[in-house]
Amino acid sequence: MMACMIAVTPRTTLGRKPSRGTHDEAKIHAILDEALICHVGFVDGGQPFVIPTLHVRVGDGLYLHGSQRSRMLGVLRAGATACVTVTLMDGLVLARSAMHHSMNYRSVVVLGTAEEVRDREEKLRVLDALVEHVARGRSRETRAPDEGELQATAVVRIPITEASAKVREGPPVDLEEDYALPFWAGVVPLRLQVLPPIADPRLRPETPMSDAVIDLLRACST
Amino acid sequence: MMACMIAVTPRTTLGRKPSRGTHDEAKIHAILDEALICHVGFVDGGQPFVIPTLHVRVGDGLYLHGSQRSRMLGVLRAGATACVTVTLMDGLVLARSAMHHSMNYRSVVVLGTAEEVRDREEKLRVLDALVEHVARGRSRETRAPDEGELQATAVVRIPITEASAKVREGPPVDLEEDYALPFWAGVVPLRLQVLPPIADPRLRPETPMSDAVIDLLRACST
Repeated sequence: MMACMIAVTPRTTLGRKPSRGTHDEAKIHAILDEALICHVGFVDGGQPFVIPTLHVRVGDGLYLHGSQRSRMLGVLRAGATACVTVTLMDGLVLARSAMHHSMNYRSVVVLGTAEEVRDREEKLRVLDALVEHVARGRSRETRAPDEGELQATAVVRIPITEASAKVREGPPVDLEEDYALPFWAGVVPLRLQVLPPIADPRLRPETPMSDAVIDLLRACST
Repeated sequence: MMACMIAVTPRTTLGRKPSRGTHDEAKIHAILDEALICHVGFVDGGQPFVIPTLHVRVGDGLYLHGSQRSRMLGVLRAGATACVTVTLMDGLVLARSAMHHSMNYRSVVVLGTAEEVRDREEKLRVLDALVEHVARGRSRETRAPDEGELQATAVVRIPITEASAKVREGPPVDLEEDYALPFWAGVVPLRLQVLPPIADPRLRPETPMSDAVIDLLRACST
C-alpha cells in the first residue's frame, strides 16, 4: 500500500539534508500527536514571533486555542499565514569530531492560514480533544466548559496540507579518517519523563486518584 | 542587591498574564542555558518559518550556527529580524475544570537582529561552547574544527537585549466553586530524561568511555 503523502509545495520542498525529510502523512500525524506542545510562528508589525502553546490534531486539522484577547490568536484570526513547528528530542549525537555533533530528533513544520472554529459543537469537541492530548481519558474527569468559558475562548484550525517532517536517527556519522580517533562516540537517548503526580494542596482527601494519570504513568514507565 | 533587568520595549512588554512574566536577566539566562534547543522564527518572502536548532548563550549573546548554505542563516545574515524562543516543559497541570488545564513551563523569547561572527578565534570559541552546551566537558573529547569546516560553517550572534521570560509553576487554579468537584487535581511533573548511552557500532572496543557522558548521567540521575 502506498503511504499517503502530503502535497509538496515550493515552501515545503526540503532544503538542506533532504534525506532526513518526508511528506508521509502518517509520520507527520504521529509526530504532531506525540508532541505535547508546538511553537507557533506569526508576523505582527513586520516582527516574527514564536510562541509555545498546546495543540491537538484532529483528522487533517491542527487546532490551537486561547483567550479571545490573545495577540497570537488575534493575528491568526485576521488571516495571517502561520508556521507551526513541533520537535521531539530523541538523543544527543556525540561524534568524534566537534562539527559532526548533532541531535536525533523528529520535527514537523506546518505552514498555513488559520480559520476560526465558530460552530459550538465543533469547538467543544476540539476543547475536549485538547484535554485528551494532555492526558488521554482526562476529559471524562473534568467539568466541561460552560457558556461563559466557551465565549471567552477562541479556537482556530490550520489545515495540515502544507507540511513536512524531518527525522534524524541512528549513530553519529564521522569523516572516514576520524573513526580512528580515540574519542568515545555514540548516542545518549533522551525522553520526556513523567514523574509521580503532586496532588493539589486543596484536593479533598476523599477524592479518588485520576485514572488518566494512572494510565499516563503506566504508559510512560514501559 | 537588585536583580539585573533587561530593558522592556514595546515589543517585549508582557501581554496576557503579565504575572507570569519577567525581564530578570539571571532568570532569562538560566532558562536559555537549561534548554537544549531553541525554535528560531524568521520571515522569508512574507512567510514566517520556525526552525528548531541548537543554541548556546555566551555572556549576553545568543549564538546559532549552521551550514553556510542554510536558508535560515542566509536570512538572518541578511539582517532580518528574528525571534528565538526556548521552552522547558515542567509539568502537566490538571485542574477540576477542562478550561483550567495548563502546563507548568519556563520559556524565553528573544527578539533581535543577528550579526555574523567572522573573527576566527571567536567562531572557534562559539563552536566549542555549542559542543559544551550539549554535554559539558565534551569539547575536550573531540577533534576541533579544521579550516574547511570553519569555512563551511556560519555562526551568528543575537544580542540578548530585548527578551522576556514567562514561567508558570505550582498547582492548578480552579474557580472557587469548582474545588468541591469530585475530580482529582494536581500536577504531573515532566523532565527530560537522559537514558544509558548507546555506543556507535563502529566504536573501537579499546576506546574509553566519555567523561562528559558519565558526568551527564550523574547530573541527570539526581
